[in-house]
Amino acid sequence: MNNFTLFGDICYNTTERTLATATGAYLVCLDGKSAGVFDFLPEQYKHLPVIDCRGQLILPGLVDLHVHAPQYSYRSLGMDLELIDWLTLHTFPEEARFEDLAYAKLAYEQFIADIRRGPNTRSVVFATRHVPGTVLLMDLLEDSGLITMVGKVNMDRHAPAPLVEHDAATSLADTRAWLREVTGRYKRTSPILTPRFIPSCSDALMEGLGEIQQELSLPVQSHLSENQGEITWVESLRPHTMSYGHAYHAHGLFGGDVPTVMAHCVWPSEDEFSLIKKQKIWVAHCPQSNINLASGIAPVRRYLEAGVPVGLGSDVAGGAHTSIFRAMSDAIGVSKLYWRLMDQTAAPLTLAEAFYLGTLGGGSFFGQVGGFAAGFEFDAIVVDDREIPGKHNLTIPERLARVVHLSDERQIKRKFVRGVEI
Amino acid sequence: MNNFTLFGDICYNTTERTLATATGAYLVCLDGKSAGVFDFLPEQYKHLPVIDCRGQLILPGLVDLHVHAPQYSYRSLGMDLELIDWLTLHTFPEEARFEDLAYAKLAYEQFIADIRRGPNTRSVVFATRHVPGTVLLMDLLEDSGLITMVGKVNMDRHAPAPLVEHDAATSLADTRAWLREVTGRYKRTSPILTPRFIPSCSDALMEGLGEIQQELSLPVQSHLSENQGEITWVESLRPHTMSYGHAYHAHGLFGGDVPTVMAHCVWPSEDEFSLIKKQKIWVAHCPQSNINLASGIAPVRRYLEAGVPVGLGSDVAGGAHTSIFRAMSDAIGVSKLYWRLMDQTAAPLTLAEAFYLGTLGGGSFFGQVGGFAAGFEFDAIVVDDREIPGKHNLTIPERLARVVHLSDERQIKRKFVRGVEI
Repeated sequence: MNNFTLFGDICYNTTERTLATATGAYLVCLDGKSAGVFDFLPEQYKHLPVIDCRGQLILPGLVDLHVHAPQYSYRSLGMDLELIDWLTLHTFPEEARFEDLAYAKLAYEQFIADIRRGPNTRSVVFATRHVPGTVLLMDLLEDSGLITMVGKVNMDRHAPAPLVEHDAATSLADTRAWLREVTGRYKRTSPILTPRFIPSCSDALMEGLGEIQQELSLPVQSHLSENQGEITWVESLRPHTMSYGHAYHAHGLFGGDVPTVMAHCVWPSEDEFSLIKKQKIWVAHCPQSNINLASGIAPVRRYLEAGVPVGLGSDVAGGAHTSIFRAMSDAIGVSKLYWRLMDQTAAPLTLAEAFYLGTLGGGSFFGQVGGFAAGFEFDAIVVDDREIPGKHNLTIPERLARVVHLSDERQIKRKFVRGVEI
Repeated sequence: MNNFTLFGDICYNTTERTLATATGAYLVCLDGKSAGVFDFLPEQYKHLPVIDCRGQLILPGLVDLHVHAPQYSYRSLGMDLELIDWLTLHTFPEEARFEDLAYAKLAYEQFIADIRRGPNTRSVVFATRHVPGTVLLMDLLEDSGLITMVGKVNMDRHAPAPLVEHDAATSLADTRAWLREVTGRYKRTSPILTPRFIPSCSDALMEGLGEIQQELSLPVQSHLSENQGEITWVESLRPHTMSYGHAYHAHGLFGGDVPTVMAHCVWPSEDEFSLIKKQKIWVAHCPQSNINLASGIAPVRRYLEAGVPVGLGSDVAGGAHTSIFRAMSDAIGVSKLYWRLMDQTAAPLTLAEAFYLGTLGGGSFFGQVGGFAAGFEFDAIVVDDREIPGKHNLTIPERLARVVHLSDERQIKRKFVRGVEI
């Protein structure tokens, strides 16, 4: 059934700041896309089957712009460390195990089961450097019904032997082999180029990835200016580059015609900020990870005011929770601390803005995704907020606040991705 | 059954920084107190019934040092406001409704049901100004099996008419009537003097409460230096008082021989900090509330280094979540931001320290509570951390980290308060 109508209480962003709400209204799905929201069902849709979700909230599926699938198994561990030590002591040893496909299958199945239960419908995903493991993850994600972009990770330096790739040539050959294997293989799953971050990638590797990008027009994901120690390291590795961001840009891997999402962007220099803006980089704001790894607070208000597209990332396992509702709640929280402690001109995020980040903001990386205006891809979740104890005679924005801050996967009753229920 | 043995994997703090752990060990309960933790069960306890919780974690019950029972119903609402506006627009109108006992019963039952499901075993609770409603809350809490201190709130100025008390004399007469009604009435529930905060209490009221304290040797709870606007207001109300804390102290309601817990303590002046230390005030650190109301981050490391007793508060509905596991997780998080953004000499809280705050630290306000050394009151929870997806071949501190950051009430399998299972 790909054509149908959902009936319930509907809420979605029309702009960064504005929520559209409709109580007891119809959301029509035709061929995987929204045909719009209607208070009264137009004649031409009256023949469609109606899924009755009265009293429940119908919201866009949430979008996770930054998550590491192999890190799911050790969420919450090693959280007394900062970025580089945490990578060395926890992340790299664990990721090395994904050479073993049996291990990878068990771990990836747990990760996917968690996301399926929750509110997210789309994710941009880091795998590991291993080609078979990455293909396996993509096969499993395709079967899950979720829509994802997945990257085989590139890293040819500064990681321990079992994980680091032999050299740039090997990394690039593996990348080409992976791309041959997955291109055209899926309906819902697509590859994204994934240099881990500048400290992990030699100039030769970055150069080669830039060439692959040019040939195949792939999108790009990586990390940027997350932690002050990391930034100092990048400066020492590339002393003649204007900023961390310019190191990606030098190889054609930083926006412009190349859809690019950069995680964190906590400490942009002025030069880097200008480049992010000029190149229309998607910023994946990962508030929980930035707390857990003591990275800081990203200047989200500045990015929004500059017109930079911003979405949210769980950044598991820097973050412990996959749900982008939690990321919305944390994004509001850290924006209040940023305002109070760092810059009283940077107004805290409103609920509508945080909901925007986790729907339309991140969704735009996938196209017309994250809203219900006619023509948008039909990603929707049905949330029974009546299960949350407390007041119930509330407006839709108040109900949304309770869902964002208090719900868990038990309240997600139905989930549709591009018109298909999963 | 008040004498028994729990068998499982045991973890508790012996000091602020130190966790004691025992895998496959016995925790003995005699007459509501711990007789100690044993790797092998001593002969004299072998006749006791054994409750087999193998593979699960046995932890001290958690202590919430600051929570507002009447605010539970509107958790997460109005979170775009700061303290004083939030009180005016949300808190005061809602609390006024607790004049109606039928309304109060419904609301308080929801609050108590939530806490019973979760990991907390003890709480220090604000009710409202209403005597019948406060007695009702205490009756319901007594029946719940939880151990609590509950305060009828005093507030004779600067609140809207339905909530503010007529004058100091009325407030004091009501307080005495309430105390006559509840004294000696309960086994698990006791009264605590509760001036709301200095802006709500005239000097005459504070004076009278000081006299009641002297007569009846009651403990005291209130709020202190939560928000910068609030502090400025207190300065204007009491221009001749050295600090906000000194305003309580002037009436004998600030520690010393008077067990006193003050919520928040985010912005202590040097004079106030010294007084907190000298008077051995319990600080109820409420990280989530301090985020939600954009108050700031309390200098917890400074308090710990000064030997000030610190516990955790959910501060519902400034905080949205009743679980003190969530407060531990948030306390670690904000301590990292404090270190990164405000003071790089204030080391972030470790997991052991956060667990201390939510068990022994807050528990000490109730006496020998929050640990399992022989003689401690027997508050224990059994947590099945195997239900949390991810790695399972872990040390007990690693398992505790997963419980603190990732568990919810579904993993709380059994709960004992002073030796009684609830």
